[in-house]
Amino acid sequence: MIWVEPFQQALKTEYTGRGPVGVMATVSEQSEPAARSVICRRIGQDGRLSFTADLRSEKIDHLRHQPSVEVVFWLSALRRQYRVSGDVRIITGGAAVGEWSALPPDTRRTFFGPPPGEAFSPADLIPDLDLTQPPPTFCVLEMLPDRVELLDLTTTPHTRQVWSRDSDWQPRRINP
Amino acid sequence: MIWVEPFQQALKTEYTGRGPVGVMATVSEQSEPAARSVICRRIGQDGRLSFTADLRSEKIDHLRHQPSVEVVFWLSALRRQYRVSGDVRIITGGAAVGEWSALPPDTRRTFFGPPPGEAFSPADLIPDLDLTQPPPTFCVLEMLPDRVELLDLTTTPHTRQVWSRDSDWQPRRINP
Repeated sequence: MIWVEPFQQALKTEYTGRGPVGVMATVSEQSEPAARSVICRRIGQDGRLSFTADLRSEKIDHLRHQPSVEVVFWLSALRRQYRVSGDVRIITGGAAVGEWSALPPDTRRTFFGPPPGEAFSPADLIPDLDLTQPPPTFCVLEMLPDRVELLDLTTTPHTRQVWSRDSDWQPRRINP
Repeated sequence: MIWVEPFQQALKTEYTGRGPVGVMATVSEQSEPAARSVICRRIGQDGRLSFTADLRSEKIDHLRHQPSVEVVFWLSALRRQYRVSGDVRIITGGAAVGEWSALPPDTRRTFFGPPPGEAFSPADLIPDLDLTQPPPTFCVLEMLPDRVELLDLTTTPHTRQVWSRDSDWQPRRINP
């Protein structure tokens, strides 16, 4: 797909040595917007984006109700914005272990805390915590893009381009 | 309100000499999520956030259907995230002129282009464009926060704090 390689390259240039940080927007059961920063863990050759999550977190409730998300990457150094939208599949159990193994130990540790978003309770001190296996609440969110939009602020006027599955990924320009 | 001043200070520290960039999440009429980067133009003493927009843009359709938004500020240098949510009021006409006057000329110029999001058409060359007055499609989005959440990644474990209008802005900690 024509947009994938330039997108990967842009993220690599912007986030040298760090995971790309996007903002994932979801819709609650009450049809209210919600958004939070997420680290993109992987980009497949077909443009599939992978994120890690806790099954007990609020966004999982949203995704079970409305699997569609939009993820925004604002690349401040490159002065470009990517908006990527599509449906998310929630992957648990053995199928999620590969992504778990790729996480740094400090990140793995965060998945053993108390339920996210609930009233604060101190984390239990687990002696000899086994970080080789994820807890059952670990999951991977795999988003298959249906639409990708690039806004380039380095040109005057700004350039805005869209690729969509519906249009067989043929690029088309829209007004900025 | 207890959260406003530290929030302003954090944005100022992170975005020295630049407008703070957040991501605003809205919900479409089809109950689908959408999100895009926005520059926060002003923060009132009561925490009100102001943004500028084009009445012809997609997010205005969303806001007329669902006025609630969530705006996320990921402050990468400070390793802190603010999520601010509430309802947006769309301000047009004379009441929007003050914000117009505060915009740099290059930004004002972008509001005279063809309808955003539509199939690309070259911008008309308007000789002697009068930038002192906004076009009728210029508007200000004023968001009155109902809930503010701070995630601080500089501590181990991470610290997550919520303030809400419902709870008279008393801070409470929730699990990260």
